Order: sequence, then C-alpha cells, then structure tokens
Amino acid sequence: MRTIGVLTSGGDAPGMNAAIRAVVRTAIENNMHVLGVNNGFEGLMMGDVVEMNLRSVSNIINRGGTILHSARSEGFKTEAGQKKAADMCKALGIEGLIVIGGDGSFRGAQALAKQGIVCVGIPGTIDNDIACTDNTIGFDTAINTVMEMVDKVRDTTESHSRCSVIEVMGRGAGYIALYSGIATGATIILVPEVSYDFDKDVVDVMKRTVATGKRHFVVILAEGCGDAEKMAKKIEEQTGIETRATILGHVQRGGSPTVRDRVLASRMGNYATRILRYDNKSCVVAEKAGTIVDYPIDIALEMKKELDIDMYRMAHEISI
Amino acid sequence: MRTIGVLTSGGDAPGMNAAIRAVVRTAIENNMHVLGVNNGFEGLMMGDVVEMNLRSVSNIINRGGTILHSARSEGFKTEAGQKKAADMCKALGIEGLIVIGGDGSFRGAQALAKQGIVCVGIPGTIDNDIACTDNTIGFDTAINTVMEMVDKVRDTTESHSRCSVIEVMGRGAGYIALYSGIATGATIILVPEVSYDFDKDVVDVMKRTVATGKRHFVVILAEGCGDAEKMAKKIEEQTGIETRATILGHVQRGGSPTVRDRVLASRMGNYATRILRYDNKSCVVAEKAGTIVDYPIDIALEMKKELDIDMYRMAHEISI
Amino acid sequence: MRTIGVLTSGGDAPGMNAAIRAVVRTAIENNMHVLGVNNGFEGLMMGDVVEMNLRSVSNIINRGGTILHSARSEGFKTEAGQKKAADMCKALGIEGLIVIGGDGSFRGAQALAKQGIVCVGIPGTIDNDIACTDNTIGFDTAINTVMEMVDKVRDTTESHSRCSVIEVMGRGAGYIALYSGIATGATIILVPEVSYDFDKDVVDVMKRTVATGKRHFVVILAEGCGDAEKMAKKIEEQTGIETRATILGHVQRGGSPTVRDRVLASRMGNYATRILRYDNKSCVVAEKAGTIVDYPIDIALEMKKELDIDMYRMAHEISI
Amino acid sequence: MRTIGVLTSGGDAPGMNAAIRAVVRTAIENNMHVLGVNNGFEGLMMGDVVEMNLRSVSNIINRGGTILHSARSEGFKTEAGQKKAADMCKALGIEGLIVIGGDGSFRGAQALAKQGIVCVGIPGTIDNDIACTDNTIGFDTAINTVMEMVDKVRDTTESHSRCSVIEVMGRGAGYIALYSGIATGATIILVPEVSYDFDKDVVDVMKRTVATGKRHFVVILAEGCGDAEKMAKKIEEQTGIETRATILGHVQRGGSPTVRDRVLASRMGNYATRILRYDNKSCVVAEKAGTIVDYPIDIALEMKKELDIDMYRMAHEISI
Repeated sequence: MRTIGVLTSGGDAPGMNAAIRAVVRTAIENNMHVLGVNNGFEGLMMGDVVEMNLRSVSNIINRGGTILHSARSEGFKTEAGQKKAADMCKALGIEGLIVIGGDGSFRGAQALAKQGIVCVGIPGTIDNDIACTDNTIGFDTAINTVMEMVDKVRDTTESHSRCSVIEVMGRGAGYIALYSGIATGATIILVPEVSYDFDKDVVDVMKRTVATGKRHFVVILAEGCGDAEKMAKKIEEQTGIETRATILGHVQRGGSPTVRDRVLASRMGNYATRILRYDNKSCVVAEKAGTIVDYPIDIALEMKKELDIDMYRMAHEISI
Repeated sequence: MRTIGVLTSGGDAPGMNAAIRAVVRTAIENNMHVLGVNNGFEGLMMGDVVEMNLRSVSNIINRGGTILHSARSEGFKTEAGQKKAADMCKALGIEGLIVIGGDGSFRGAQALAKQGIVCVGIPGTIDNDIACTDNTIGFDTAINTVMEMVDKVRDTTESHSRCSVIEVMGRGAGYIALYSGIATGATIILVPEVSYDFDKDVVDVMKRTVATGKRHFVVILAEGCGDAEKMAKKIEEQTGIETRATILGHVQRGGSPTVRDRVLASRMGNYATRILRYDNKSCVVAEKAGTIVDYPIDIALEMKKELDIDMYRMAHEISI
Repeated sequence: MRTIGVLTSGGDAPGMNAAIRAVVRTAIENNMHVLGVNNGFEGLMMGDVVEMNLRSVSNIINRGGTILHSARSEGFKTEAGQKKAADMCKALGIEGLIVIGGDGSFRGAQALAKQGIVCVGIPGTIDNDIACTDNTIGFDTAINTVMEMVDKVRDTTESHSRCSVIEVMGRGAGYIALYSGIATGATIILVPEVSYDFDKDVVDVMKRTVATGKRHFVVILAEGCGDAEKMAKKIEEQTGIETRATILGHVQRGGSPTVRDRVLASRMGNYATRILRYDNKSCVVAEKAGTIVDYPIDIALEMKKELDIDMYRMAHEISI
Repeated sequence: MRTIGVLTSGGDAPGMNAAIRAVVRTAIENNMHVLGVNNGFEGLMMGDVVEMNLRSVSNIINRGGTILHSARSEGFKTEAGQKKAADMCKALGIEGLIVIGGDGSFRGAQALAKQGIVCVGIPGTIDNDIACTDNTIGFDTAINTVMEMVDKVRDTTESHSRCSVIEVMGRGAGYIALYSGIATGATIILVPEVSYDFDKDVVDVMKRTVATGKRHFVVILAEGCGDAEKMAKKIEEQTGIETRATILGHVQRGGSPTVRDRVLASRMGNYATRILRYDNKSCVVAEKAGTIVDYPIDIALEMKKELDIDMYRMAHEISI
C-alpha cells in the first residue's frame, strides 16, 4: 500500500488528534503517503483532502476536538454516495482508509469496504459504547471532565446542605455515569442498563443515608434515564431536601485528552496503520485486557456490551 | 473586643474558607476568641456556634464552599428575628460579627448593627455585583471555571463548525459574561447592562465574521439576557449555522479558589478582624485599586456599580 | 470477623483516601468495626488507632495524600517489632488488617501474617512497580500530573526553540516515563528497563528529527536513568541546541486523584474488606485485565514486572 | 500609520499570544497591515516577518508561549544591530512596532525609537517585575501554576508530617513567592526584597508553629533568596523535622493563560495598537488601578517597584 486516507466521523472525542498524529507518523515512517480527509465521509465524497507530513501533526497531541473536522453526511448513507466516495478514493489513489469514530462510522467503513476500499475503524467516542473494545478514545477524558465538574458542584451542594441531580452524557450507555458516579461518591447512580424504582432506589436510599448523618447528596443520572429537572422536583417533594438540577452538556465532549486517551489513541493509530501496510485487511481495532487487537467489522458491529454489574453493586455498597 | 463571631451567608463562593481562616488566625494572634456560626443568620438566631482555634482552619484555604455552611433565613428578615440574633450574640459574648456574603447579607449586618452588634461585611459572591469593591471573593475563580468550560465546548464547536450559545451566571450583572467572553474570544457577548438588537448585534455580526473565514462561533449570554435554548434556535434559523445551547449552571459556584481569590479573601479577613479589634466600627470591607479599604454599611449599600463600557467595546473590536 | 484495621504505609499516593473510604464503608455495611491506624506500622506498634464510622470518611474521596498518614518504621523491621504489632492487634481486637502501600509494605504484611494476623495488601504507589497488578493506586494520577507539567514546559520549549530534559519519578520502573513520554509526544524516552547508547539513541535521533523541520524537543528521563542536568549539558554540547533540565520532584506524588484511581481504589478497598469478612485469608489484591483478583502474598512478592516493549518501540516510531 | 510590526522578546509568558491576537485584530479593524516578526529583535534584523490576517490569530488566545517565538540577540545589543533593525523596518514599511516583553525588551524598543521607529512596549513577563504596571502579562497564570503545584506537594508533605522547601521563580522580585505563599498558606515566605535571619525568621517560626499542633510545613523561597536544597538540610538539622526541597523550574513559564492574563493582554494589545494608529508615539503600556495607561519609555524604565510590605506582614500574621 502506498497511499492511505484518514478521517474522523460522528461526534468528536478528545484524543482523536492523537490518533491522527499516530496514523500520519506511522505511515510516513513505513513509507506511505497520508491524505487527511476533512469533514468525515461528506468530505471524502467531495475529495476534500490534504496531504499530511510529519509536521502537519506537530503540537496536536494535547488538543481536544479533531483537526480534520467532522460532519454528518446524508449523502453517504445511500449506496450512490458510498460508490461516489469509493470512486473518489480511487481517483485520489487512496488504497486504504482509517475511520475514527463510533458504531455509525464503522457502518460507513463497512459499506466502503464492500465498495473495494480497505477500511480500518478506530473507536473514538466519549460514551465508551463500542462493544468490541474495553475503552474508546475520549472516554477517559470525558469521565475526568465530569468528575471535576461534579467535584465543584459538590462544594456548593455541601455548603447549602442540598441534593444535586446531575445529568451526564450517555443516551444508551451508563459508563460515564457509573465511573463518574463512583469517583465522586454519588449517593445514587442511575444508568440506562439497570431499571430503577424511584421510591425504593432513590427516596428510600436518601432517607437511609440521612439517618447516618449525611446532609448533602449527589445523584448522577445518565441522559437516557429521565429528566434531571423533573427528578430534582420529585426528590425535593418526597424528601423535603432542597434539590437542584444540573445538566453538564457539551463541556463533556471537549478538553485536552488525559494520558490514557493520548496513549490509547497513539497505540490504536499506530496499529491500524500497520494493518493497512502489512495486512491489507478491513477491520476494527480494539483494546482488550490492555492489548491492541482487531476484529472483522461485521463481527465488531454485532457484539453487545454490558455494564459491569458488580461495579454497579459495589458503587452503592460504599455510597452510604 | 474579646470575642467575635464569623458567618457566611447567601450563595457560597470559592474563597470564603480562606476568609474564615484569615479571620480566625488574625483574631487569635490579636488575643481574641472566635466563634464560628453555622448556617448564616439562621444559625446565629439558634446559637449554632463552635469555638474556633488555629487548627480548626488548617487545610481549608484551598477548598471551595464554606465550612460554616450557609442557609436562607426567613426568620431573620423580621425585626423580631434580628433582635433574637442580637440577644443571642450578647448571650454568647459575641461583641463583633464578621459577615461574609453579598448585598443581602450586608443588609442583615446593617440590621444587626442597629441592634447594637458591631458588624463588618466582607464581599463574597461570584457575581462581582457589589458596588463598593473592585472585586468580590469568588469572582476570579468563577470566571476561570467558566473559561475552562468554554474552552472545552469550543473544541467540539470547532470540530463541527458550529455555533455555541453558552449561558453563564449573572442575573443582574454582566461581569462573568464580559470577562469570560473576552478570555475565550467569544464572537458575541450579551450582558444585562447593555441592551441589544438581535438582528444587528447577533445575526449581522455573525454574518460579517463568516465573511472573514471563521466557521465556529461562541456566544456568551449572561443569565439575565434571555433564554439560551431559544436564542440558539433563532441563530440557527437566521444564519443557517448549526447552533447548540449550553447552560453552565452550578458548576460555576464551586471549585478550589484561584490565587487572586485566596489572597483577596486573606487580606479582607485580616483587615476586617483588625477593624473589630482596633476600630470597633461597623462597615463593609472593599478592594479599591489594589488596596483594602472600608465604607460605612449604609453608604456601601447605596453605591451603584457600572460595567466597564470601554472593555465591552474592546471585546467586540477584537472578536471578529 | 468483627473488627479490622486499616493503615497506609510507604510513600503516599493519590487514591489512598478513596481506598480507606471503601474499606470503612464496606466493613460497616457488612457489620464489622474498623480501626484506622495512624502512621503505618509505626503507629500500629504504638496502638495509635481511631474508630472509624461512615462519616469519618466523608469528603475524602477527592483528596490526595492519606488521612491516616504514613511513616517509616525502623522498629517494625525487626521480629520483635512485628511481634509487638501483632500483640497490639490482639489487644485492640483487630482480627484482620488492610495494608495499603507498595512491595515494602507487603513484606510487612507478610511478616505480620506469620504472627497470626490476617493481612490483605492493596497496591498503592505512583510508580506502578508492583508485579501482580496491571495498575497501582496513584499511577494514573501521577502520569496525568506529569503530562500537565510537561505540556506547560513544552510551551516555553517551543517558544524558544529549545530542548528540555525532564526527569520524572521511577527509580527502578519506567512506567511513569513511558506513559507520560508517549502522552506528551516526547522525542526521546529513557527508562531503567532499557539500556541506551547516548550517541545513537539521543544525539542521532535528535539530529534526524531536526532534519524533518522540528525545532523543539522533549526528552523524558526516568529518575533511575541518569542525571538530568548533566544530560542537558551533553545534549547542548553535541547538538548545538539550547537545552534546559527540569526535575519534576514531589509534585508528582500529590493532587486530587483521577477517575481511574478513585474507581480502582474503591474497587480494591471493597474487595479487600470482603475477603477479610468472607474468606479470612491473607493475600494481595490486584487488577488483571480489568477484574479485581487476589494472590497469596508470597507469590505476589515473587512476581516480576516487565515494561511493555512494544509500546516502547511504538513510542519512538511516532515521535519523529 | 499604514503598517505595523509586532514581536515578542525575552522570556515567554502565558498571554503573549492573546496580546498578539489583540494587536492583529485591532490593527486590521483600524485599516492597518500587521507584520508578525519571528524570534524577537534577532528576527527583526533578519527581516523574518509574515503578514498577519484575522485568521492568523484564530484559536491562539488560550495557548501558552508565543507563536512568534522569542530569542536572545547579541547583535541587536550593538548600535549597528539597532540601525540594521531600523533599516529593515523601513525596507519592510514598518512604521510602528509593538514589543511584548520585559525591561530588557523595552530597552531594545527605546534604542529603536532613537533610530526613528515608533515603538510601544507591552509588559509581558511572569515575574511581575516591571515598575510602571500593577500587573504584567503572565504573572497571574504563573502564580496559579505555582499554587496548584504547591497544593499537590502539600498533600504528600501532610501525609508524611514533613516540611517542604519550595523554590519559585523571581531572581530579583518576590511577587510570585508572596502571592503563591499567601495562597497556599505557607508558614514562611522568603523574598529578595526583605532580608531575613534564618534562626529567627525560619527556625523560631517553625518551632512556634509546632507548638500550636501543626505537623507539616511549607516554606516558599524566591529564586534569589538562597539554595532550596541547602535550606532544607539546615531546617532538618535545626528543627528535627524531615525536610525536602522542590524546585519548580520551567513549568512556571507555560500553560494556558488565566482569565486575568487573557483579558489584560487583550486590553493592552488593543490599547497599544490604537496608540500607534491615533497617537503615533513611543511609550510603554501599563495597568494602573484597573485602567490601561501609558508612560514614556524613559520614564517607565526609571521607575522602581516595591513589594507590598503590608501584604508581607499580613501573610505571616495568618500563617501560624
């Protein structure tokens, strides 16, 4: 393989730039050219690319977001769009493509692979909701960002002897809620993977904790588990404790990546590029038990991820 | 004076603990006893106090919130409540009281002073909306917290070539919006002190900036200037740029204080305690041009604070 | 088991407080008493203990250091000292003891186990140099602290087109150097596990990188790999590039723990306490492939840890 | 004036980029061209310049260091060099020059003004040692960086009941030491402006503090006040308290600037550019009592700065 492309797709995540950097550096060290594709699959269809050199990726390892930008593409969802993108790859000499993103982006890679372009997916999303990998690029940064914000909310929650209901990202996945909830000593953590009974799992737990002398409370609510404002109102009504809602929002997507995300992104970018160079196969790169491995795209997309229920149990055992 | 009290009242602010520490240390160094009053004026009426020593305030200078807690008090708003508090002071031997809080707290101090308790106010609020002082305790921390969050939102705003409307605290005062807006290079800053025309000051400015090649935008909106969600929708409709709203919320109130807030709090706490010890007069402590000074409470409460309009103009001159 | 003790020993590490909190909460939830032992084994010999309750460990999950303090103990290194400590345990009713620390601390636990006190070790040290576990408590925080400091040094290194030699902790282990080196895009990383040739691995690499257009350089040096000042001088002499040394020092040991450290500490503290309650056996707790497991102390102490040489190779492939 | 230049000189400081951005944006808004000069006066002599546009300074407000780089110049210290630089300005059409740096840089500006180039100085240095201004660009960031590092050292200092001697920057000026010392509750602060007696001001103070029950100590030492390692040894010998030295080093120069530094830099850059456009005079820009003002370069260079001795006294009154 002589020329490869790299793009970021879907929601951005801290560490994507570190992955781009690793791809570019590894490719050049292994005598390949790299084209950076702007704006994801949309830019690929348009041929919006730029030749990357060793210095194009200087000083980006510490920056959040993605220097290649990301965009939704309605056109690429159609087979005509996918064919157009594959034709553009051929016109530009792109023999292999690295796609950094989530499951939706991997489905795009799968479609493109069917059109004859070798594609390697790298899991980049803050939600950690990709089944084949233990960790996605961006997750570690996001949970630390959430933790720092909850630590700050807790100052004012404690000063005023209040309860704070804090909504974090994760429509279908409770990883951000679970990790940030344990890390901030939340009294209650609600995740989409585990159904809950408001009276038993929220009100009764708070009342039991009040009895131990605790006067301030943090409830962490994953996005997919209900409305923070409504829950705050209900908690105040049923416990008599003044309760406020906070929705952390898009702050969670940005920021300079943590060590774990920079290292994971570097390893995955290096591994993915070597696959294109030496194995010439389509796949998704993943981290399992600390090692970087790969799965066929079809298999990666069929896997199911489950929350660690033992960690969830533990969280509540020590939150009293 | 042999015994003084100290309390925090109203919304908490980072640096209040540094002020409490300075009060306790200065009092003991100058041969006075200090009683820490829990839960503001409500706790004062109830006699909820604890004797403080040099070690009671160890390791709190770096902590957000207030170790003395804060609470609203309906009872203290009545003259009966104020008399009760004054009687409690006399019963406990409290000859002078230091009140850390905002204008509402100073009105409480004013009322108590009329009941014969010498009261010194220290301006502690993140909003910087106290007229007699250049800076309030907590403001510097809050603007840095806002800046860090906006810097993170900007990563994702830039990656997706979007506009972000970010609502910051400040119902009646635009200081947080102005400082954080300048610091984050916001394209548009909206504050309650300056009226604006949506078409001219938002839409036209964004269109003009687009023409210079800029593809991502941050709009900082003070709480008192409209609804962030509605504004985001209107901007998207009228400019065609994808726009998202973020409300930063209570995160802004917490966190470990900055150097400026710790130093300001230390100076004000030291100064206020020395006034009780050596001048025995009721007043509000303030920072003017880098120096700590004091004003009679009545005068402090009558002063009006204005936003620096030249800074506001400058902000927009360099934001294009 | 009705009563257990918990102590921290050796160098402190961020997350030790989160582990103490998990031990106390889990013990009380499982109907045991917990005595907090101050100052490690020295305090144990002296009977310097305090009964812990649910609120003793409130608001410590986010604090660096250890509320139980740590100290060296010459006395405990002797068999007489160990017997004294075991007798004190019996006098105080301590049937099982949780020891949070490094290999040295586990040797203490091993000695105490021989005296009839069931001991469970929890790996807490920033160096990540404990063989039986993938991660130690404190490592993740330390590498992020190092990364943030190197990111700052890099600003000034870049502005002045210099080289910075930065010495990080790790006398016998290169984990901190390797992870922080990858995360900061260091041109050269030197670790005790891999011998290096100064001319070939430092000077030649820098010269080769200069040829690609790079003008500023970061060299990360683990403590055990030489003297930063001397190396800076040699680099300047042989490359002609202005070079400065920075020794990061004790800043690396402190700070509020990251999510990973708080979660790891919570899981290990919970697991260790349950072992005392339900399994009544001496062991060392460890994290393997994301799961918490345990090893007999003798076996844990005999294991050898190796640096991931593939990561080390990768680091240099993408650092050019 | 139609064309101006801007350069950064001397040690870099966080906020220099924010100043460059304000200069470029203000110049273009006021119909002037701006040439960015690389590597300070050295680059000016060589004609190493680049035309700046509105987008050249996008996304730099939050970055430490200086995008224009800085370098020492032996050549420019001679009159021949100064004439060469002035001739280059004329050849490039640079009618006015903005020089961001410290006193040494202003002496360069003074020399250049004598050669007929209108020069405006902006005070940028972390040391805050420029007499005409209350604050220099970079000082606020540096003191917050120091504070965060000392807060981390304090965790381990406290866990081990030690004393830490921490050396901070400031060869001739104690501002960094004074502000960071107050902010971290240092027991002792040593600055070059105030002579000290080791026995009385260090040993006796520590012994007196031990008597109040304090077991861990932080001593902040400005660079110009002695050797941290030697002092640590002496303290340990004379007090019996285990003492460690930490030298914070170049980490203090970098990092993303605080709000205060970004705002100050923006205001000064805007003001300086307007002086070139509308007043056409050489001067140094300064902040006095919150307002931006200017002084003739000669006068600015003759002014003397004194440490606030009352703050120094206060620091020790509350540090016990």
